[in-house]
Amino acid sequence: MLVRSGILTAADGEAVSVHNEAGASDVVLVCEHASNRFPAAARDFGLSPEVRESHAAWDPGALALAKLLSSRLDGVLIHANFSRLVYDCNRPPDSPAAMPEKSEIYEIAANVGLIPAERYARMAALYVPFHDRISSILAARAEQGRRTVLVTMHTFTPVYFGKPRAVEIGILHDADCRLADAMLAHLGEQAYRIERNAPYGPEDGVTHTLQLHALPGGHLNVMIEVRNDLVRDEQGVGAAADCLERMMSNALATLSRGDGAG
Amino acid sequence: MLVRSGILTAADGEAVSVHNEAGASDVVLVCEHASNRFPAAARDFGLSPEVRESHAAWDPGALALAKLLSSRLDGVLIHANFSRLVYDCNRPPDSPAAMPEKSEIYEIAANVGLIPAERYARMAALYVPFHDRISSILAARAEQGRRTVLVTMHTFTPVYFGKPRAVEIGILHDADCRLADAMLAHLGEQAYRIERNAPYGPEDGVTHTLQLHALPGGHLNVMIEVRNDLVRDEQGVGAAADCLERMMSNALATLSRGDGAG
Repeated sequence: MLVRSGILTAADGEAVSVHNEAGASDVVLVCEHASNRFPAAARDFGLSPEVRESHAAWDPGALALAKLLSSRLDGVLIHANFSRLVYDCNRPPDSPAAMPEKSEIYEIAANVGLIPAERYARMAALYVPFHDRISSILAARAEQGRRTVLVTMHTFTPVYFGKPRAVEIGILHDADCRLADAMLAHLGEQAYRIERNAPYGPEDGVTHTLQLHALPGGHLNVMIEVRNDLVRDEQGVGAAADCLERMMSNALATLSRGDGAG
Repeated sequence: MLVRSGILTAADGEAVSVHNEAGASDVVLVCEHASNRFPAAARDFGLSPEVRESHAAWDPGALALAKLLSSRLDGVLIHANFSRLVYDCNRPPDSPAAMPEKSEIYEIAANVGLIPAERYARMAALYVPFHDRISSILAARAEQGRRTVLVTMHTFTPVYFGKPRAVEIGILHDADCRLADAMLAHLGEQAYRIERNAPYGPEDGVTHTLQLHALPGGHLNVMIEVRNDLVRDEQGVGAAADCLERMMSNALATLSRGDGAG
């Protein structure tokens, strides 16, 4: 393995992991913000434990929820192994949010004034292997004649810039809203407050993974956001998974019957 | 090999080539704009032969000159195998010049309105392998205790936006001007009109490769620009190589004696 300017060493392990690779369903789950780990050489960017545990560094609860959904739906799960503060795999290299100098209220001093070599090294070590892995898994499925339904799994902070957020689950989409429409069409009685493109939407640049891997091939796709206070423990994760599994299964059944969003 | 959205197929070959890999000297030559070839799937971007032969697509004469200098100086040469119009390996992905919509007077329609997946595919297929190759060659040299003097080899058009350029050879540098200073310090009688940071300089974003590979490690480095009408044939290439070989050898001898730019 190429050691890139000390970004990743052999001891850090791989930038990306795949869970339930033999999953038999159409669903491919992606979790870009699964981890709050920093490469050893990065020395936690000198950040306090508070920041490193916060949503600035990762999406707390997202990986546990993605893993449970991966098992329930029997879908493969691809997730990043390092903090979004080192490189945010859901952002292109031309986005200031890829290596943010500030995340909400937190100053990320280690990202201020990055030289081109450091920007390159992080992108090449973290972003490219992540999306290459998704590309090659999707290409292999296509070669096998398998369909892909791409689902990215995120969580969001209940309080943002001091303002509480009422929405509990967001169903986000980019230009292709088929799956989101189907998920939102028959909500019925829900334990959660569920909204479309909330607490933010594609105009905020959050659908990069969908743009890279779902839109060009016309794969059904959706981005799911769950408020992270709801998935703080096993019980919360289980309840959210119950809801999302049901929504996803119903939506996919509806779409495969060809009656779209009804 | 991963086929990325049809950017490169096996028939296209590698994105980067290495010439004289066993070169014994300290000099490592890089030629980002060596080729005007397009991947087969790109169908020449629908461009006329005139545009494809022009400086918009590559640096005419640069590869021949770099190869001759590589032999004369016994230095390794790393060069790209595809047109800068597909991805300009001397530009970071956040630069509009990386996949330019317009190059001087030429509209590049195939680069207008690129979707994120296409931008990603070109970057991952062309830019990253190019710079990873340089990184790994430089890292191997460092492990062997070998010094590196990085020289990027370019040519420029004699007429730009209708205006003739009088300068014939440009010696360009970024923050580290040691080698450029030494090359320019003792020019004496020259067959060429030689200038510092001309016809453009680091403020134009042309020193990206130097920034990535020379500045962080403190390697001596320089970017050389030759007006392309002077290297149109073997004789021209030979004469330019004579001049540059002499300048380079004198400069490196001066620097190794420790008397800097005198």
